[in-house]
Amino acid sequence: MQKHVSDSTVRRLSHYLRALESLELEGPFTVSSEELAQRGGTTAAQVRKDLSHFGSFGKRGLGYGVPKLAAKLRGILRLDRRWRVALVGAGRIGSALFAYPDFELRGFDVVAVLDSDPAKVGACWGAVKVTPADRLEEIVRALRIELMILAIPAEAVQEVADRAVGAGVRGILNFAPRQVRVPSGVHLKHVNLVMELEALSFAIGQDGSKA
Amino acid sequence: MQKHVSDSTVRRLSHYLRALESLELEGPFTVSSEELAQRGGTTAAQVRKDLSHFGSFGKRGLGYGVPKLAAKLRGILRLDRRWRVALVGAGRIGSALFAYPDFELRGFDVVAVLDSDPAKVGACWGAVKVTPADRLEEIVRALRIELMILAIPAEAVQEVADRAVGAGVRGILNFAPRQVRVPSGVHLKHVNLVMELEALSFAIGQDGSKA
Repeated sequence: MQKHVSDSTVRRLSHYLRALESLELEGPFTVSSEELAQRGGTTAAQVRKDLSHFGSFGKRGLGYGVPKLAAKLRGILRLDRRWRVALVGAGRIGSALFAYPDFELRGFDVVAVLDSDPAKVGACWGAVKVTPADRLEEIVRALRIELMILAIPAEAVQEVADRAVGAGVRGILNFAPRQVRVPSGVHLKHVNLVMELEALSFAIGQDGSKA
Repeated sequence: MQKHVSDSTVRRLSHYLRALESLELEGPFTVSSEELAQRGGTTAAQVRKDLSHFGSFGKRGLGYGVPKLAAKLRGILRLDRRWRVALVGAGRIGSALFAYPDFELRGFDVVAVLDSDPAKVGACWGAVKVTPADRLEEIVRALRIELMILAIPAEAVQEVADRAVGAGVRGILNFAPRQVRVPSGVHLKHVNLVMELEALSFAIGQDGSKA
Protein backbone atom coordinates (compact mmCIF):
# COMPACT_ATOMS: atom_id res chain seq x y z
CA MET A 1 0.00 0.00 0.00
CA GLN A 2 2.84 2.35 0.81
CA LYS A 3 4.44 4.21 -2.07
CA HIS A 4 7.88 5.68 -2.25
CA VAL A 5 8.21 8.36 0.39
CA SER A 6 10.61 11.22 -0.33
CA ASP A 7 13.34 12.44 1.99
CA SER A 8 11.56 15.75 2.37
CA THR A 9 8.35 13.99 3.45
CA VAL A 10 10.29 12.06 6.09
CA ARG A 11 11.82 15.31 7.29
CA ARG A 12 8.40 16.92 7.62
CA LEU A 13 7.13 13.90 9.56
CA SER A 14 9.97 14.53 12.02
CA HIS A 15 8.83 18.13 12.35
CA TYR A 16 5.19 17.16 12.86
CA LEU A 17 6.25 14.73 15.56
CA ARG A 18 8.16 17.49 17.37
CA ALA A 19 5.08 19.72 17.23
CA LEU A 20 2.87 16.90 18.54
CA GLU A 21 5.26 16.18 21.37
CA SER A 22 5.16 19.75 22.57
CA LEU A 23 1.33 19.59 22.38
CA GLU A 24 1.39 16.36 24.40
CA LEU A 25 2.94 18.36 27.24
CA GLU A 26 0.97 21.61 26.91
CA GLY A 27 -2.30 20.55 25.32
CA PRO A 28 -4.70 20.88 23.58
CA PHE A 29 -5.10 17.24 22.74
CA THR A 30 -6.46 17.66 19.25
CA VAL A 31 -4.74 19.56 16.48
CA SER A 32 -5.82 20.69 13.03
CA SER A 33 -3.74 20.17 9.90
CA GLU A 34 -3.51 23.98 9.74
CA GLU A 35 -1.83 24.13 13.11
CA LEU A 36 0.51 21.22 12.37
CA ALA A 37 1.37 22.94 9.10
CA GLN A 38 2.19 26.18 10.82
CA ARG A 39 4.47 24.46 13.31
CA GLY A 40 6.09 22.36 10.60
CA GLY A 41 6.68 25.27 8.23
CA THR A 42 4.38 23.96 5.49
CA THR A 43 0.74 24.04 4.31
CA ALA A 44 -2.29 22.17 5.62
CA ALA A 45 -2.69 20.44 2.24
CA GLN A 46 0.90 19.20 2.49
CA VAL A 47 0.28 17.83 6.00
CA ARG A 48 -2.75 15.90 4.78
CA LYS A 49 -0.84 14.59 1.77
CA ASP A 50 2.17 13.55 3.85
CA LEU A 51 0.03 11.67 6.34
CA SER A 52 -2.10 10.06 3.63
CA HIS A 53 0.92 7.94 2.61
CA PHE A 54 0.46 5.98 5.81
CA GLY A 55 -3.28 5.57 6.06
CA SER A 56 -6.18 7.64 7.25
CA PHE A 57 -5.90 9.77 10.38
CA GLY A 58 -8.05 12.39 11.99
CA LYS A 59 -11.69 13.26 11.45
CA ARG A 60 -12.91 16.00 9.17
CA GLY A 61 -13.66 19.06 11.31
CA LEU A 62 -12.26 17.47 14.47
CA GLY A 63 -8.57 17.34 13.62
CA TYR A 64 -6.10 14.76 14.81
CA GLY A 65 -5.87 13.24 18.27
CA VAL A 66 -2.47 14.36 19.52
CA PRO A 67 -1.28 11.27 21.46
CA LYS A 68 -2.59 8.90 18.81
CA LEU A 69 -0.96 10.69 15.87
CA ALA A 70 2.31 11.09 17.82
CA ALA A 71 2.39 7.35 18.52
CA LYS A 72 1.62 6.61 14.89
CA LEU A 73 4.44 8.86 13.67
CA ARG A 74 6.88 7.30 16.14
CA GLY A 75 5.92 3.94 14.65
CA ILE A 76 6.35 5.15 11.05
CA LEU A 77 9.75 6.65 11.83
CA ARG A 78 10.67 3.54 13.82
CA LEU A 79 11.29 5.63 16.91
CA ASP A 80 9.22 3.25 19.01
CA ARG A 81 12.43 1.29 19.60
CA ARG A 82 16.04 2.08 20.45
CA TRP A 83 18.90 2.03 17.96
CA ARG A 84 22.44 0.94 18.72
CA VAL A 85 24.88 3.41 17.24
CA ALA A 86 28.69 3.49 16.96
CA LEU A 87 30.58 6.72 16.42
CA VAL A 88 33.84 6.47 14.49
CA GLY A 89 36.06 9.50 15.02
CA ALA A 90 36.74 10.95 18.46
CA GLY A 91 37.83 14.39 17.23
CA ARG A 92 36.01 17.69 17.60
CA ILE A 93 33.02 16.84 15.46
CA GLY A 94 32.77 13.40 17.06
CA SER A 95 32.82 14.82 20.56
CA ALA A 96 30.21 17.45 19.68
CA LEU A 97 27.98 14.71 18.26
CA PHE A 98 28.52 12.46 21.26
CA ALA A 99 27.35 15.25 23.58
CA TYR A 100 24.27 16.02 21.50
CA PRO A 101 21.45 15.40 24.01
CA ASP A 102 18.72 14.80 21.45
CA PHE A 103 20.26 11.56 20.18
CA GLU A 104 19.50 9.70 23.38
CA LEU A 105 16.14 11.42 23.83
CA ARG A 106 15.17 10.17 20.38
CA GLY A 107 16.22 6.59 20.91
CA PHE A 108 19.72 6.65 19.43
CA ASP A 109 22.18 5.16 21.92
CA VAL A 110 25.82 5.76 21.09
CA VAL A 111 27.23 2.61 22.67
CA ALA A 112 30.70 2.65 21.10
CA VAL A 113 33.26 5.27 20.06
CA LEU A 114 36.20 4.26 17.88
CA ASP A 115 39.32 6.09 16.77
CA SER A 116 42.55 5.12 15.05
CA ASP A 117 44.63 7.61 17.05
CA PRO A 118 46.40 5.84 19.96
CA ALA A 119 46.36 9.15 21.88
CA LYS A 120 42.56 9.07 21.91
CA VAL A 121 42.04 5.35 22.55
CA GLY A 122 41.27 4.47 26.16
CA ALA A 123 39.68 7.82 27.06
CA CYS A 124 36.35 7.50 28.86
CA TRP A 125 33.45 9.40 27.35
CA GLY A 126 30.80 8.99 30.02
CA ALA A 127 30.33 5.26 30.28
CA VAL A 128 31.89 4.61 26.86
CA LYS A 129 35.59 3.95 26.39
CA VAL A 130 37.22 4.97 23.10
CA THR A 131 38.24 1.77 21.29
CA PRO A 132 40.89 1.26 18.56
CA ALA A 133 39.32 1.58 15.11
CA ASP A 134 40.91 -1.69 13.98
CA ARG A 135 38.46 -3.49 16.26
CA LEU A 136 35.51 -2.12 14.28
CA GLU A 137 34.15 -5.44 13.00
CA GLU A 138 34.42 -7.06 16.40
CA ILE A 139 32.62 -4.14 18.08
CA VAL A 140 29.84 -4.05 15.49
CA ARG A 141 29.16 -7.74 16.01
CA ALA A 142 29.57 -7.85 19.79
CA LEU A 143 27.42 -4.77 20.44
CA ARG A 144 24.97 -5.45 17.59
CA ILE A 145 25.57 -2.01 16.08
CA GLU A 146 22.95 -1.02 13.51
CA LEU A 147 23.85 2.58 12.70
CA MET A 148 27.27 4.15 12.36
CA ILE A 149 28.23 7.80 12.44
CA LEU A 150 31.46 8.61 10.59
CA ALA A 151 33.25 11.75 11.78
CA ILE A 152 36.63 10.95 10.27
CA PRO A 153 38.87 12.45 7.57
CA ALA A 154 37.70 12.15 3.96
CA GLU A 155 40.58 9.81 2.96
CA ALA A 156 39.47 7.14 5.44
CA VAL A 157 35.76 7.21 4.96
CA GLN A 158 35.22 4.70 2.12
CA GLU A 159 37.37 2.03 3.75
CA VAL A 160 35.66 2.41 7.13
CA ALA A 161 32.23 2.37 5.48
CA ASP A 162 33.14 -0.83 3.60
CA ARG A 163 34.24 -2.50 6.81
CA ALA A 164 31.12 -1.35 8.65
CA VAL A 165 28.88 -2.71 5.91
CA GLY A 166 30.82 -5.97 5.86
CA ALA A 167 30.23 -6.34 9.58
CA GLY A 168 26.48 -5.80 9.22
CA VAL A 169 25.80 -2.08 9.76
CA ARG A 170 22.54 -1.07 8.04
CA GLY A 171 22.74 2.72 8.08
CA ILE A 172 25.60 5.21 7.90
CA LEU A 173 25.57 8.92 8.67
CA ASN A 174 28.65 10.41 7.04
CA PHE A 175 30.10 13.75 8.16
CA ALA A 176 33.27 13.52 6.07
CA PRO A 177 33.37 15.81 3.04
CA ARG A 178 33.48 12.95 0.57
CA GLN A 179 30.86 10.83 -1.18
CA VAL A 180 30.73 7.23 0.01
CA ARG A 181 29.38 4.25 -1.92
CA VAL A 182 27.38 1.58 -0.13
CA PRO A 183 25.65 -1.48 -1.55
CA SER A 184 21.89 -1.44 -2.01
CA GLY A 185 20.14 -2.41 1.20
CA VAL A 186 22.43 -0.18 3.25
CA HIS A 187 21.20 3.35 3.88
CA LEU A 188 23.40 6.39 3.75
CA LYS A 189 22.95 10.03 4.72
CA HIS A 190 25.58 12.63 4.12
CA VAL A 191 25.92 15.80 6.18
CA ASN A 192 28.37 18.13 4.53
CA LEU A 193 28.63 21.32 6.50
CA VAL A 194 30.49 23.26 3.83
CA MET A 195 27.91 22.32 1.21
CA GLU A 196 25.19 23.84 3.38
CA LEU A 197 27.10 27.11 3.35
CA GLU A 198 27.67 26.73 -0.39
CA ALA A 199 23.93 26.34 -0.89
CA LEU A 200 23.38 29.63 0.96
CA SER A 201 26.11 31.26 -1.11
CA PHE A 202 24.41 30.05 -4.30
CA ALA A 203 20.97 31.26 -3.15
CA ILE A 204 22.25 34.73 -2.28
CA GLY A 205 24.08 34.86 -5.61
CA GLN A 206 20.78 34.09 -7.38
CA ASP A 207 19.21 37.18 -5.75
CA GLY A 208 21.98 39.28 -7.23
CA SER A 209 21.49 37.89 -10.73
CA LYS A 210 17.74 38.56 -10.56
CA ALA A 211 18.21 42.12 -9.31
CA MET B 1 17.49 32.41 -18.89
CA GLN B 2 18.10 30.58 -15.64
CA LYS B 3 15.23 28.50 -14.26
CA HIS B 4 14.64 27.46 -10.68
CA VAL B 5 17.50 25.27 -9.56
CA SER B 6 16.70 22.67 -6.91
CA ASP B 7 18.66 22.15 -3.69
CA SER B 8 19.76 18.73 -4.89
CA THR B 9 21.16 20.22 -8.11
CA VAL B 10 23.16 22.74 -6.09
CA ARG B 11 24.45 19.92 -3.92
CA ARG B 12 25.59 17.97 -6.96
CA LEU B 13 27.33 21.05 -8.35
CA SER B 14 29.32 21.15 -5.10
CA HIS B 15 30.28 17.52 -5.63
CA TYR B 16 31.30 18.09 -9.25
CA LEU B 17 33.45 21.01 -8.15
CA ARG B 18 35.23 18.82 -5.60
CA ALA B 19 35.91 16.23 -8.28
CA LEU B 20 37.22 18.89 -10.66
CA GLU B 21 39.48 20.32 -8.00
CA SER B 22 41.12 16.99 -7.38
CA LEU B 23 41.57 16.63 -11.17
CA GLU B 24 43.13 20.11 -11.27
CA LEU B 25 45.89 18.76 -9.03
CA GLU B 26 46.30 15.30 -10.51
CA GLY B 27 45.20 15.68 -14.12
CA PRO B 28 43.97 14.77 -16.69
CA PHE B 29 42.76 18.18 -17.76
CA THR B 30 39.65 17.08 -19.55
CA VAL B 31 36.88 15.01 -18.02
CA SER B 32 33.82 13.27 -19.45
CA SER B 33 30.33 13.59 -17.99
CA GLU B 34 30.61 9.85 -17.22
CA GLU B 35 33.63 10.42 -15.03
CA LEU B 36 32.14 13.44 -13.29
CA ALA B 37 29.02 11.38 -12.71
CA GLN B 38 30.96 8.57 -11.15
CA ARG B 39 32.77 10.90 -8.81
CA GLY B 40 29.58 12.77 -7.96
CA GLY B 41 27.51 9.64 -7.30
CA THR B 42 25.08 10.20 -10.18
CA THR B 43 24.57 9.51 -13.90
CA ALA B 44 26.14 11.16 -16.95
CA ALA B 45 22.70 12.30 -18.11
CA GLN B 46 22.17 14.01 -14.75
CA VAL B 47 25.55 15.79 -15.01
CA ARG B 48 24.63 17.13 -18.45
CA LYS B 49 21.20 18.20 -17.26
CA ASP B 50 22.57 19.91 -14.14
CA LEU B 51 25.15 21.85 -16.12
CA SER B 52 22.66 22.78 -18.85
CA HIS B 53 20.88 25.08 -16.39
CA PHE B 54 23.85 27.41 -16.63
CA GLY B 55 24.71 27.40 -20.32
CA SER B 56 26.61 25.16 -22.64
CA PHE B 57 29.89 23.57 -21.56
CA GLY B 58 32.15 20.96 -23.03
CA LYS B 59 32.42 19.59 -26.54
CA ARG B 60 30.75 16.39 -27.65
CA GLY B 61 33.33 13.61 -27.58
CA LEU B 62 35.97 15.81 -25.97
CA GLY B 63 34.47 16.29 -22.54
CA TYR B 64 34.88 19.30 -20.31
CA GLY B 65 38.02 21.33 -19.78
CA VAL B 66 38.79 20.85 -16.09
CA PRO B 67 40.10 24.33 -15.09
CA LYS B 68 37.43 26.09 -17.15
CA LEU B 69 34.51 24.11 -15.74
CA ALA B 70 35.89 24.42 -12.20
CA ALA B 71 36.10 28.21 -12.56
CA LYS B 72 32.59 28.30 -13.99
CA LEU B 73 31.18 26.25 -11.09
CA ARG B 74 32.97 28.48 -8.55
CA GLY B 75 31.27 31.42 -10.21
CA ILE B 76 27.84 29.76 -10.18
CA LEU B 77 28.18 28.83 -6.50
CA ARG B 78 29.60 32.28 -5.77
CA LEU B 79 32.77 30.77 -4.36
CA ASP B 80 34.87 33.16 -6.41
CA ARG B 81 34.66 35.57 -3.48
CA ARG B 82 34.93 35.36 0.29
CA TRP B 83 31.99 35.42 2.70
CA ARG B 84 31.99 37.04 6.13
CA VAL B 85 30.43 34.68 8.65
CA ALA B 86 29.48 35.05 12.32
CA LEU B 87 29.02 32.02 14.56
CA VAL B 88 26.53 32.38 17.41
CA GLY B 89 27.03 29.76 20.11
CA ALA B 90 30.45 28.92 21.51
CA GLY B 91 29.49 25.50 22.89
CA ARG B 92 30.58 22.08 21.66
CA ILE B 93 28.90 22.25 18.27
CA GLY B 94 30.08 25.82 17.77
CA SER B 95 33.67 24.93 18.57
CA ALA B 96 33.60 21.92 16.26
CA LEU B 97 32.26 24.13 13.48
CA PHE B 98 34.81 26.84 14.15
CA ALA B 99 37.61 24.30 13.78
CA TYR B 100 36.25 22.87 10.55
CA PRO B 101 39.11 23.50 8.11
CA ASP B 102 37.01 23.38 4.95
CA PHE B 103 35.10 26.56 5.78
CA GLU B 104 38.13 28.77 5.27
CA LEU B 105 39.36 26.73 2.31
CA ARG B 106 36.01 27.31 0.64
CA GLY B 107 35.91 31.05 1.23
CA PHE B 108 33.86 31.21 4.41
CA ASP B 109 35.67 33.33 7.00
CA VAL B 110 34.30 33.07 10.51
CA VAL B 111 35.22 36.58 11.67
CA ALA B 112 33.07 36.71 14.82
CA VAL B 113 31.95 34.30 17.54
CA LEU B 114 29.16 35.34 19.92
CA ASP B 115 27.77 33.76 23.07
CA SER B 116 25.40 34.86 25.81
CA ASP B 117 27.29 32.96 28.53
CA PRO B 118 29.62 35.34 30.45
CA ALA B 119 31.91 32.38 31.17
CA LYS B 120 32.59 31.99 27.44
CA VAL B 121 32.83 35.68 26.52
CA GLY B 122 36.38 36.98 26.17
CA ALA B 123 37.96 33.63 25.28
CA CYS B 124 40.25 33.80 22.24
CA TRP B 125 39.53 31.36 19.45
CA GLY B 126 42.53 31.84 17.22
CA ALA B 127 42.41 35.49 16.26
CA VAL B 128 38.72 35.79 17.15
CA LYS B 129 37.53 36.83 20.62
CA VAL B 130 34.17 35.53 21.85
CA THR B 131 31.82 38.54 22.08
CA PRO B 132 28.64 38.96 24.16
CA ALA B 133 25.58 37.97 22.14
CA ASP B 134 23.79 41.20 23.06
CA ARG B 135 26.22 43.00 20.75
CA LEU B 136 24.97 41.00 17.76
CA GLU B 137 23.53 43.92 15.73
CA GLU B 138 26.62 46.04 16.28
CA ILE B 139 28.94 43.19 15.23
CA VAL B 140 26.90 42.37 12.12
CA ARG B 141 27.08 45.99 10.99
CA ALA B 142 30.67 46.70 11.97
CA LEU B 143 32.08 43.52 10.43
CA ARG B 144 29.66 43.47 7.49
CA ILE B 145 28.50 39.94 8.35
CA GLU B 146 26.56 38.27 5.52
CA LEU B 147 26.07 34.72 6.81
CA MET B 148 25.32 33.55 10.31
CA ILE B 149 25.68 30.08 11.81
CA LEU B 150 23.40 29.41 14.77
CA ALA B 151 24.65 26.73 17.16
CA ILE B 152 22.48 27.71 20.13
CA PRO B 153 19.63 26.11 22.09
CA ALA B 154 16.27 25.75 20.35
CA GLU B 155 14.51 28.24 22.67
CA ALA B 156 16.78 31.10 21.58
CA VAL B 157 16.96 30.49 17.88
CA GLN B 158 13.97 32.48 16.56
CA GLU B 159 14.87 35.59 18.53
CA VAL B 160 18.51 35.51 17.44
CA ALA B 161 17.49 34.89 13.82
CA ASP B 162 15.10 37.87 13.95
CA ARG B 163 17.84 40.12 15.29
CA ALA B 164 20.34 38.88 12.68
CA VAL B 165 17.87 39.54 9.88
CA GLY B 166 17.07 42.98 11.29
CA ALA B 167 20.78 43.81 11.24
CA GLY B 168 21.17 42.76 7.61
CA VAL B 169 22.26 39.11 7.57
CA ARG B 170 21.28 37.46 4.26
CA GLY B 171 21.76 33.77 5.01
CA ILE B 172 21.38 31.64 8.14
CA LEU B 173 22.60 28.11 8.78
CA ASN B 174 20.65 26.78 11.75
CA PHE B 175 21.90 23.85 13.82
CA ALA B 176 19.27 24.16 16.55
CA PRO B 177 16.59 21.47 16.51
CA ARG B 178 13.80 23.94 15.81
CA GLN B 179 12.28 25.45 12.67
CA VAL B 180 13.01 29.13 12.20
CA ARG B 181 11.01 31.61 10.14
CA VAL B 182 12.78 34.25 8.10
CA PRO B 183 11.32 36.85 5.73
CA SER B 184 11.54 36.27 1.98
CA GLY B 185 14.86 37.47 0.63
CA VAL B 186 16.74 35.87 3.53
CA HIS B 187 18.00 32.33 2.93
CA LEU B 188 17.87 29.61 5.50
CA LYS B 189 19.35 26.12 5.74
CA HIS B 190 18.62 23.81 8.61
CA VAL B 191 20.95 21.04 9.73
CA ASN B 192 19.19 18.81 12.20
CA LEU B 193 21.46 15.99 13.21
CA VAL B 194 18.77 13.92 14.90
CA MET B 195 16.55 14.15 11.83
CA GLU B 196 19.33 12.65 9.73
CA LEU B 197 19.36 9.65 12.06
CA GLU B 198 15.56 9.55 11.98
CA ALA B 199 15.68 9.40 8.19
CA LEU B 200 17.99 6.36 8.42
CA SER B 201 15.70 4.80 11.00
CA PHE B 202 12.74 5.32 8.66
CA ALA B 203 14.61 3.89 5.67
CA ILE B 204 15.65 0.76 7.55
CA GLY B 205 12.10 0.39 8.83
CA GLN B 206 10.87 0.46 5.22
CA ASP B 207 13.11 -2.51 4.39
CA GLY B 208 11.43 -4.44 7.16
CA SER B 209 7.94 -3.67 5.89
CA LYS B 210 8.89 -4.77 2.36
CA ALA B 211 10.48 -8.02 3.57
